[in-house]
Amino acid sequence: MNEALHEQTIDSEQVFDGKLLKVFRDTVRLPSGHQAVREYIRHPGAVVVVAILDNYELVFERQFRYPLDRVILELPAGKIDPGESILDTGKRELREETGYQAGEWTYLGVMHPCVGYSDERIEMFLARRLEHVGAALDHEEFLEITSLSLEDALTAVMNGQITDAKTVVALFRAERVLRAGRAPDAR
Amino acid sequence: MNEALHEQTIDSEQVFDGKLLKVFRDTVRLPSGHQAVREYIRHPGAVVVVAILDNYELVFERQFRYPLDRVILELPAGKIDPGESILDTGKRELREETGYQAGEWTYLGVMHPCVGYSDERIEMFLARRLEHVGAALDHEEFLEITSLSLEDALTAVMNGQITDAKTVVALFRAERVLRAGRAPDAR
Repeated sequence: MNEALHEQTIDSEQVFDGKLLKVFRDTVRLPSGHQAVREYIRHPGAVVVVAILDNYELVFERQFRYPLDRVILELPAGKIDPGESILDTGKRELREETGYQAGEWTYLGVMHPCVGYSDERIEMFLARRLEHVGAALDHEEFLEITSLSLEDALTAVMNGQITDAKTVVALFRAERVLRAGRAPDAR
Repeated sequence: MNEALHEQTIDSEQVFDGKLLKVFRDTVRLPSGHQAVREYIRHPGAVVVVAILDNYELVFERQFRYPLDRVILELPAGKIDPGESILDTGKRELREETGYQAGEWTYLGVMHPCVGYSDERIEMFLARRLEHVGAALDHEEFLEITSLSLEDALTAVMNGQITDAKTVVALFRAERVLRAGRAPDAR
């Protein structure tokens, strides 16, 4: 911890307790000694999965994202349930949203999507040796499953068809492993 | 718009009006005809800047991010002021946070950091031909300026030292332009 930048909590108050969003307003002491207010979301964390089909295409979803009023092309992901391991979250969300089970899971690291106003972390996994066993969507979840090659996904990032940050970061982290997996002789 | 996925607003209510966070709870009609609740943040949008020094290093900041209780290594960025163009936001934030003015600005596209619960968009710019004219930090802003080569930044993403999603996405989008700029003969 860099003490010259650290902010110390003086007071913490929950200002909204929604079904999804838990909003807090804390009073902090700044490095200068002055006080300031910090408003933020407490989030249980999430898992995003780069799932690779036998033909090397990646499993994607098209999902309506209400805050943006548009359909977003993104990787399968979901929130961590209380007490659930991140690997179990990845397995559950991949199964529920896309109907796939994976025989091989590789951890790809963690990202922070919204450092300014949320404590959310998103854990990343690569899932291989997929088997389709049928989806079990929540009755309020509506999405379309599609697939893209790695090249087409990277092109979609560059031309603005993929704008979802967790998807771009997970592709970034997965790319090295994916390229190695396609060309095992080059390892 | 894919009508099979679209959610229609029935009612919208602001449930928290903070200094930073504006939280809404809407009732929507799902594609099935059933109703559901959507909680989300309305955000003015932000701009992140990949600023390249004459020695090809990129300008980074270390900033304490209270929701995560840690110092985060990230690119310069900030919220769009009311009525401000995104280019002016980029120029203002780069100047205020790092003290640099840039002679050349290139638009790199947009990302959505938090599609599940925020309408935030982050616009990306590349800034070149930097000149140091002195920083003008807000009296409540505390940060340290540093710089990293593109290679070191990409390594820091892969080894988990950079976890900030906007920074990773902006590096991803900037990489192609940066590599072209380093080796003009290869264009």
